Amino acid sequence: MNIAIFGCGTVGGGVARILTDMGDLLNERARGDIHLKKIVELTPKTASERFNLPLSLFAGGGKDLTKEEAQKYIDEVIGDKNIDLIVETIGGSNDFVFETALKICRAGKHLVTANKALLALRGKKIFEVAEEHNVSIGFEAAVCGAIPIIKTIRESFTGDSIDSVSGIMNGTSNYILTMMQNEKMDFNDALKMAQQGGYAEADPTLDINGFDASHKLIILIKLAFGIDITLEQLSPIGVKDIEKEDIDFAEEISCKIKLICFGKKIDGKIYATVRPMMVKNDNFLSGVNGATNAVRLVNKYGGRHILVGAGAGSLETASSIVADIVFIARYNNKLSNCISKSQFSFIDAGHFVFPYLIIFKTVDIPGITGLVTTSIGNQQINIDTVSHNRHTKEYAVFSIATTPCTLRQIESAIAEIRKTRPDVLLGDPKIMPILY
Amino acid sequence: MNIAIFGCGTVGGGVARILTDMGDLLNERARGDIHLKKIVELTPKTASERFNLPLSLFAGGGKDLTKEEAQKYIDEVIGDKNIDLIVETIGGSNDFVFETALKICRAGKHLVTANKALLALRGKKIFEVAEEHNVSIGFEAAVCGAIPIIKTIRESFTGDSIDSVSGIMNGTSNYILTMMQNEKMDFNDALKMAQQGGYAEADPTLDINGFDASHKLIILIKLAFGIDITLEQLSPIGVKDIEKEDIDFAEEISCKIKLICFGKKIDGKIYATVRPMMVKNDNFLSGVNGATNAVRLVNKYGGRHILVGAGAGSLETASSIVADIVFIARYNNKLSNCISKSQFSFIDAGHFVFPYLIIFKTVDIPGITGLVTTSIGNQQINIDTVSHNRHTKEYAVFSIATTPCTLRQIESAIAEIRKTRPDVLLGDPKIMPILY
Repeated sequence: MNIAIFGCGTVGGGVARILTDMGDLLNERARGDIHLKKIVELTPKTASERFNLPLSLFAGGGKDLTKEEAQKYIDEVIGDKNIDLIVETIGGSNDFVFETALKICRAGKHLVTANKALLALRGKKIFEVAEEHNVSIGFEAAVCGAIPIIKTIRESFTGDSIDSVSGIMNGTSNYILTMMQNEKMDFNDALKMAQQGGYAEADPTLDINGFDASHKLIILIKLAFGIDITLEQLSPIGVKDIEKEDIDFAEEISCKIKLICFGKKIDGKIYATVRPMMVKNDNFLSGVNGATNAVRLVNKYGGRHILVGAGAGSLETASSIVADIVFIARYNNKLSNCISKSQFSFIDAGHFVFPYLIIFKTVDIPGITGLVTTSIGNQQINIDTVSHNRHTKEYAVFSIATTPCTLRQIESAIAEIRKTRPDVLLGDPKIMPILY
Repeated sequence: MNIAIFGCGTVGGGVARILTDMGDLLNERARGDIHLKKIVELTPKTASERFNLPLSLFAGGGKDLTKEEAQKYIDEVIGDKNIDLIVETIGGSNDFVFETALKICRAGKHLVTANKALLALRGKKIFEVAEEHNVSIGFEAAVCGAIPIIKTIRESFTGDSIDSVSGIMNGTSNYILTMMQNEKMDFNDALKMAQQGGYAEADPTLDINGFDASHKLIILIKLAFGIDITLEQLSPIGVKDIEKEDIDFAEEISCKIKLICFGKKIDGKIYATVRPMMVKNDNFLSGVNGATNAVRLVNKYGGRHILVGAGAGSLETASSIVADIVFIARYNNKLSNCISKSQFSFIDAGHFVFPYLIIFKTVDIPGITGLVTTSIGNQQINIDTVSHNRHTKEYAVFSIATTPCTLRQIESAIAEIRKTRPDVLLGDPKIMPILY
């Protein structure tokens, strides 16, 4: 099996390194020879030094490429009958990467990728084209780096039916929350520290607004339940607005705040959401700290499963790509792309019943607690606890824990508060499910 | 693919139930039809009622079978050209089961089994015969029930190199230790409770002497490192001698006692042991309670992985067997039986360097602490802490935590104590590694 790599950055370079290091052992495992034939990369010298790779492997012989030259070499490799499988580690979901993925499949070559944005946002077409051309798409590396969640669902849970999939799937967010929790940092300091430690990118937008986590959940939901959902349907909430006082409220009810991806099947409907949740200290996910990822599945027969591991990193993510290569080589067979028929309908989590913690920031005048609790009661929501009200110079802030209800009910209560007294709420209350 | 099941008890019956329930969905996943054709079972009526299965599926038409009749039907099924795969859920490692497994492979049929004792103690021959006859052995269910650790190693960690595998692999022992820890029960009460709750068998010997956990570790070591080791080489220690005061000593050093399976590769040598260990509260395994199992792997590239799930149970274990059936049907291919070449040598854990906690029970006279600590020092072992000495009517008991050293050093120190004062030690001191 002859392989080419497009994009030799953090992940692609790791793949080249492992392929080179493991050599014969991989051939034994794949029951055939795996050859890395060509790498297309704009700046080969940097990549060559960083990953200790011979310049001769790079298209163009080692000189830096213009985008036009790179495009030419990419087309050459895709047209090369001797190449059987292409690793796409360019990243992003723009037209260029999308078209490249389609061309690879149409040329009858297997595609292995770590590109979660591409598969989550534009994967439907790619999977269809792969199906038409009878090629495999390996994407173990696209969801939670080194954690083998994709193969676990595709190959190990085939004798079962998945009822729910949830977890901590964005290392940057979890690192920030852990620092805020354990070191009492505020959000901006924790983000800076994450960037300095290599746990967050210079532009952390996709991580802190919940989009990256959503990409992973979209892929897992397709795989586990067989349906395609969009980022808009999920309408994720990230960690970027979490404040120190939110962490304090979490502590008061024996919880940790975690950015949770959540998908659950009930009566043939799939509920899903990505948002910060109050995770009870008894729940295993509350103890998953730093950049670590964790995925929790509940199956009909096998019960609860948890997988924990490195969610990112060069060699960590690359090891998943290499496993996909070995799998495709070994079984020389089209991987099935999901394990369930898609007879399910999607319901956004606004209709899902959770207990909630609602954090209200209000002007500091008497009568607010009465107004808020009355409006909540008017929506038939039972109140579990009302926190101590913190009075600062500028505002008052307090939290209310509810018994199980829907987000829609809470939104109606908030609408009523706004209607009764348009001047009291400062910003939108934070509404976080409590996860037991 | 036509299937037969030998033995329709807890696990075999669960398999028949899932095959019947899932039907078309399994066929879709397997990309072919899976038919359950025949079940051989001594008491079909009981099995039929327990798992809601038609009596017509059973060999003999539903009447109870003598052993001779069962043997006849087993031979018939093995000789039947229409049967492609046999699920062995009879259990045990006696000659009858061993010969049956060999016959299945020699007849060119795939074998799927949950039988850890058989594979751990007599698996070498079975794997060889399977190899010769080009058939697959599926044994996902043999190690930690529903946890997909076998396929994870065989199919997902192929782009990596496993450095260590450890974990909690016996639910009965872990349930007993959890009850002793959390409910302050003594061993016998905890065992009784485990039996009443269905977490321990009427004869719990294999569980409480560490043999069952050892069987699983032997299989994982073969799979991860490619070497065959014996139960004698492991010389496991079970939980049966753990006392309440041991739990107290664990609490003093912020640990939980857990029965740990431990295998680690260092410089081409494999160290392995199964014994109760002092697991630091920071270590994830310390929080795995009740009958739950957890496996922890550390890989060269991917780093630390943890898998948690149900280690036993009828449908839980059966779901792993069904996944093996689907996998064999889907890829119609011989599964590779280990992922590493067997160039490693085995070293028993006596040579492995751990920090240890040693619990001494002695006659209650002055001078003992001096004698014990001096003897330990004479073996070049540094002492970390000496616990408060508990004086009861009959004896004194105290613990000593060491810095990292080998079991051999500790045994030499104990020999010296015995030589100096043959009358002071009451029984063998308990020597437990401290796991960070």
